[in-house]
Amino acid sequence: MSKVLIIAASESVLDLMNQAKKVLDEFGVENEITIASAHRSPERAKELILDAETRGIKVIIAGAGMAAHLAGVVAAHFPLPVIGVPIKHDGEGLDALLATLQMPPGIPVATVAIDGAKNAGLLAVQILATSDADLQKKMVAYKNKLSLDIEEKAAKLEKLGVEGYLSGKK
Amino acid sequence: MSKVLIIAASESVLDLMNQAKKVLDEFGVENEITIASAHRSPERAKELILDAETRGIKVIIAGAGMAAHLAGVVAAHFPLPVIGVPIKHDGEGLDALLATLQMPPGIPVATVAIDGAKNAGLLAVQILATSDADLQKKMVAYKNKLSLDIEEKAAKLEKLGVEGYLSGKK
Amino acid sequence: MSKVLIIAASESVLDLMNQAKKVLDEFGVENEITIASAHRSPERAKELILDAETRGIKVIIAGAGMAAHLAGVVAAHFPLPVIGVPIKHDGEGLDALLATLQMPPGIPVATVAIDGAKNAGLLAVQILATSDADLQKKMVAYKNKLSLDIEEKAAKLEKLGVEGYLSGKK
Amino acid sequence: MSKVLIIAASESVLDLMNQAKKVLDEFGVENEITIASAHRSPERAKELILDAETRGIKVIIAGAGMAAHLAGVVAAHFPLPVIGVPIKHDGEGLDALLATLQMPPGIPVATVAIDGAKNAGLLAVQILATSDADLQKKMVAYKNKLSLDIEEKAAKLEKLGVEGYLSGKK
Amino acid sequence: MSKVLIIAASESVLDLMNQAKKVLDEFGVENEITIASAHRSPERAKELILDAETRGIKVIIAGAGMAAHLAGVVAAHFPLPVIGVPIKHDGEGLDALLATLQMPPGIPVATVAIDGAKNAGLLAVQILATSDADLQKKMVAYKNKLSLDIEEKAAKLEKLGVEGYLSGKK
Amino acid sequence: MSKVLIIAASESVLDLMNQAKKVLDEFGVENEITIASAHRSPERAKELILDAETRGIKVIIAGAGMAAHLAGVVAAHFPLPVIGVPIKHDGEGLDALLATLQMPPGIPVATVAIDGAKNAGLLAVQILATSDADLQKKMVAYKNKLSLDIEEKAAKLEKLGVEGYLSGKK
Amino acid sequence: MSKVLIIAASESVLDLMNQAKKVLDEFGVENEITIASAHRSPERAKELILDAETRGIKVIIAGAGMAAHLAGVVAAHFPLPVIGVPIKHDGEGLDALLATLQMPPGIPVATVAIDGAKNAGLLAVQILATSDADLQKKMVAYKNKLSLDIEEKAAKLEKLGVEGYLSGKK
Amino acid sequence: MSKVLIIAASESVLDLMNQAKKVLDEFGVENEITIASAHRSPERAKELILDAETRGIKVIIAGAGMAAHLAGVVAAHFPLPVIGVPIKHDGEGLDALLATLQMPPGIPVATVAIDGAKNAGLLAVQILATSDADLQKKMVAYKNKLSLDIEEKAAKLEKLGVEGYLSGKK
Repeated sequence: MSKVLIIAASESVLDLMNQAKKVLDEFGVENEITIASAHRSPERAKELILDAETRGIKVIIAGAGMAAHLAGVVAAHFPLPVIGVPIKHDGEGLDALLATLQMPPGIPVATVAIDGAKNAGLLAVQILATSDADLQKKMVAYKNKLSLDIEEKAAKLEKLGVEGYLSGKK
Repeated sequence: MSKVLIIAASESVLDLMNQAKKVLDEFGVENEITIASAHRSPERAKELILDAETRGIKVIIAGAGMAAHLAGVVAAHFPLPVIGVPIKHDGEGLDALLATLQMPPGIPVATVAIDGAKNAGLLAVQILATSDADLQKKMVAYKNKLSLDIEEKAAKLEKLGVEGYLSGKK
Repeated sequence: MSKVLIIAASESVLDLMNQAKKVLDEFGVENEITIASAHRSPERAKELILDAETRGIKVIIAGAGMAAHLAGVVAAHFPLPVIGVPIKHDGEGLDALLATLQMPPGIPVATVAIDGAKNAGLLAVQILATSDADLQKKMVAYKNKLSLDIEEKAAKLEKLGVEGYLSGKK
Repeated sequence: MSKVLIIAASESVLDLMNQAKKVLDEFGVENEITIASAHRSPERAKELILDAETRGIKVIIAGAGMAAHLAGVVAAHFPLPVIGVPIKHDGEGLDALLATLQMPPGIPVATVAIDGAKNAGLLAVQILATSDADLQKKMVAYKNKLSLDIEEKAAKLEKLGVEGYLSGKK
Repeated sequence: MSKVLIIAASESVLDLMNQAKKVLDEFGVENEITIASAHRSPERAKELILDAETRGIKVIIAGAGMAAHLAGVVAAHFPLPVIGVPIKHDGEGLDALLATLQMPPGIPVATVAIDGAKNAGLLAVQILATSDADLQKKMVAYKNKLSLDIEEKAAKLEKLGVEGYLSGKK
Repeated sequence: MSKVLIIAASESVLDLMNQAKKVLDEFGVENEITIASAHRSPERAKELILDAETRGIKVIIAGAGMAAHLAGVVAAHFPLPVIGVPIKHDGEGLDALLATLQMPPGIPVATVAIDGAKNAGLLAVQILATSDADLQKKMVAYKNKLSLDIEEKAAKLEKLGVEGYLSGKK
Repeated sequence: MSKVLIIAASESVLDLMNQAKKVLDEFGVENEITIASAHRSPERAKELILDAETRGIKVIIAGAGMAAHLAGVVAAHFPLPVIGVPIKHDGEGLDALLATLQMPPGIPVATVAIDGAKNAGLLAVQILATSDADLQKKMVAYKNKLSLDIEEKAAKLEKLGVEGYLSGKK
Repeated sequence: MSKVLIIAASESVLDLMNQAKKVLDEFGVENEITIASAHRSPERAKELILDAETRGIKVIIAGAGMAAHLAGVVAAHFPLPVIGVPIKHDGEGLDALLATLQMPPGIPVATVAIDGAKNAGLLAVQILATSDADLQKKMVAYKNKLSLDIEEKAAKLEKLGVEGYLSGKK
């Protein structure tokens, strides 16, 4: 039974939003991904959300570009956390960022960085980890690994010198 | 029977949106104004729009601030022109502007200037004037009046000189 | 007899503005497209507009980049709806957007998204549909098709899974 | 035992951040509020976070202005959800917004609107509601109330007319 | 016989544009000031410009806010230098700045700072000084005076100390 | 004897600034082009300007990118018109634009569009044309040619249709 | 013998720049403050800088608004660290920020936050502390005090509760 | 014994940050470069800084992108100058710029231009030169060389003409 529903606003952002799915799969969190548009298929979007609530979905991740209304529309109907991913489209992505983030009092959207689908997946894991000690442990391990990666790179850099390190990457 | 429906996203923008109503009243266009929020009352917003279509509403004007989704949500359901008014809220209004304007291909919103409710009313008149010769005449007269106002001011300025003109205004 | 006149501010934006023409052709709306510049051929621009009014043009669509004055200049002379398309040129297009949208009270321009020529065509159809029941039906059908397209993609995604779906697109 | 820890980056933002506390109190969620700065008291900030993890805090809300690093610093150490509130300071707040939101892959911060402390409180409630059916019910009721408020205002507006409604508010 | 024509786009910017007139008066350059709008009185604007060319006007200064088309429209018709003053209106003035400055190749507008009407007057003097040795001398004297003013203030500051200097200004 | 001095802030912008030179050559205006940096060769920049004044240079055109101080530094020393060209460098060019345009009262810089070196050349011609009837005639002819070019393109478009026109350009 | 020279670009920013002086006085660092403009008194600015180098000044702090060239002009002549303070003037200060910060390779300016004169003073102290163990100790003490202040406020907040704390501040 | 420590926030910015190292090597300033992340390896970052203070590091240069907290985190712990390099990542770099620069009162970061690692190296040299007469001389020589380079290019340009100069570069 899925706990997280990922909604891509269009086919063109599906590949990016799949980064969220990969994180959830990696942490062993059941999830599903689909396509729905707040503007082009408003009925479908609404039904998806009501159905999600009924089926026990705990978190919805919505990614959209331009006047990115999808996360806000989801948040209007869904009582549990909605994570918004503002997606760049032919520009810096400020349009999607502001349209996702600047929600009025009463209807929050948990917004991540522009194109930050991976972090959206991690945030969903953290949310579920508030009531799942195993997930919390995995998240602690994940953070330790991030730190170790940096330390390994620093050690390698110290050993090879910066020119050696950089030429090794080319 | 109303031809234009004006929707204010909240009580706080009602006064500004009333400028659109005043223009419509001045041109003798039947209209009505109400409050509905895409985020706080999504069901009501949708019912309003479907009802508007049934009742023969020809144009909907929607005004909202912040992540201004109202016009986009209206445009998702309504097949006739939707005019969006991005409204400033505690800033320059760039959030409302981009959230109203940057609609994806397929679902246009006719956006006017930030806080441009008066122009939204005029645009609705122009739209109805495409099939109403009387309204078109009134619009021509309106434009002539704008021009005459400028000419009168210029004549007064020439007569009084700039200092005289400005001191007369204080 | 053309109902919509499309004006491209220069040869370089003609290809983009042709997207508006294609939409109008698709909906069976008579239209014509030409080139005129508010800055380089101001006389021609003005004559075009006066002539358009005389010939019964109902809507003018104007697309321009940089300090995009074309739509504003058209709106200064034309009493019926003017749709402005702000066009990117060597940057994000914020210059064209603000120069098209931020019209003073009295002279609205119905602005669509940056490079949104397709939506400009759809908005012109919606405007004409306010007095043409057939066009309105076509527009309802168009919106339904947008929604069906999304549903088909969602069904395909459910069937193939996200990896299958994405690999099928490459 | 507190479930949510609210950290204000300085005394000057305490009043705003108290809006988050009020929401949590209203929903009956145990919480505490304190002051710590990522820049002026980095040790204290870190100890607070480690202590929070030990004490079973489930969500941390961090509010800061300018180069708002507090939420990011908290997220660097804390394995559960961190909600960031970018706070305006002598400007539009774009600095705080970008400094809170644009976190690198691996370390998400759930960002809400500029000055959106109230929504930060609501988001914390939603996060806890993913494992607390009572909280979820309260959140559904809260959303219904938002909708009813709009409907009541719309009814009053219909009854009084826009002039009557607006004059009644002055 | 006037050499410089100043055009204010509306009554509301007349006071600011009068700063340009004051500079011209101070340098003894014949000038006149009037009101004309590119959007509300396009015919009047055009006639003014053609008349200006006939009467031997050498420089036109145009000041406007929002989608500030006035200077561009003047430049489209006038073959001699056009100075544009972008004027703030309910915001930072970026709209007026970009709409004045970002002219396409072929039609330059000499743009000064936002609200920079005084500098527009000085620039007009400099332009006329290219063929008027007396004006050039006056401009050299003006620049020397700017420098002397700074030196006097610096001397006073050295004498009084910063606290004394600042308290003397309150 | 040169009347216009063009200064490129670095070798990297010389090609762009050469567009100004080409315009001046085309109009038969004597000119010269050199390289000087406000930051890397401040002495040279100053000597160039003082020498220019002595030699009878009437207009200086300065082009620079990033924190584009060159035009301002020239304007600080030179009593006649200084035209500033803000040049893009690894971004939108907003830095160069604001650093060139936002001059304090007393020291104007006549700023043209980002990368607008061609218009800088035209503006210099217009400035010299204020005291040179021949140049003024050439400028009128130039503007007429711009207009004719548009008309020819429009005629060709009418003849070939938009698809024919566009395919002929590929 | 002064070690730090503070230059205010105009009388209007002297009060703000005095914050840098106060920090230096507090740390016992000899300093002086004066007024000079890169645009209005370029000779004076240059002489000040050359004189500063001769007199053994180690750090120059320059504060300016709009197209803030002062710090860059100082950096062009001075071989030791130049600290730039971008100062807001009738807007967000983005113009001053970019004009101060975006220096080309070869000529750095150490830029602090918008209106950050106090931090400019502290940075000057830190620079001098690189060769002055006493100053370094004072800086460590200063940082400890910042931290203690936060801790005291947090303790007071814990004792009084947020309502008590906030009401005590009114 | 190293005097300057350069910290790259990730492997991806190491190449850019190496430009700072090259400058320091060129001036003969002992330095070292490593990788540490404020978000992914907060402990390592802190230990690095405390160790740096102990080992007598005089200046730390930190380069990061997005919500660039690294320099601020370093400045929170380190009592001597911290130079911040905001690094572009998939955009204009405004996020990194504001997150690096807009430090609160008490904790300055000496910020250089976006991607300005070379200038960061030069600024570190200038800081060390405040107590090292040899370094100061080298810096004076460096500045003279910058100026000579410009003069040589200008001489070459005068000799070859602009077309010859430009064709010689292709």
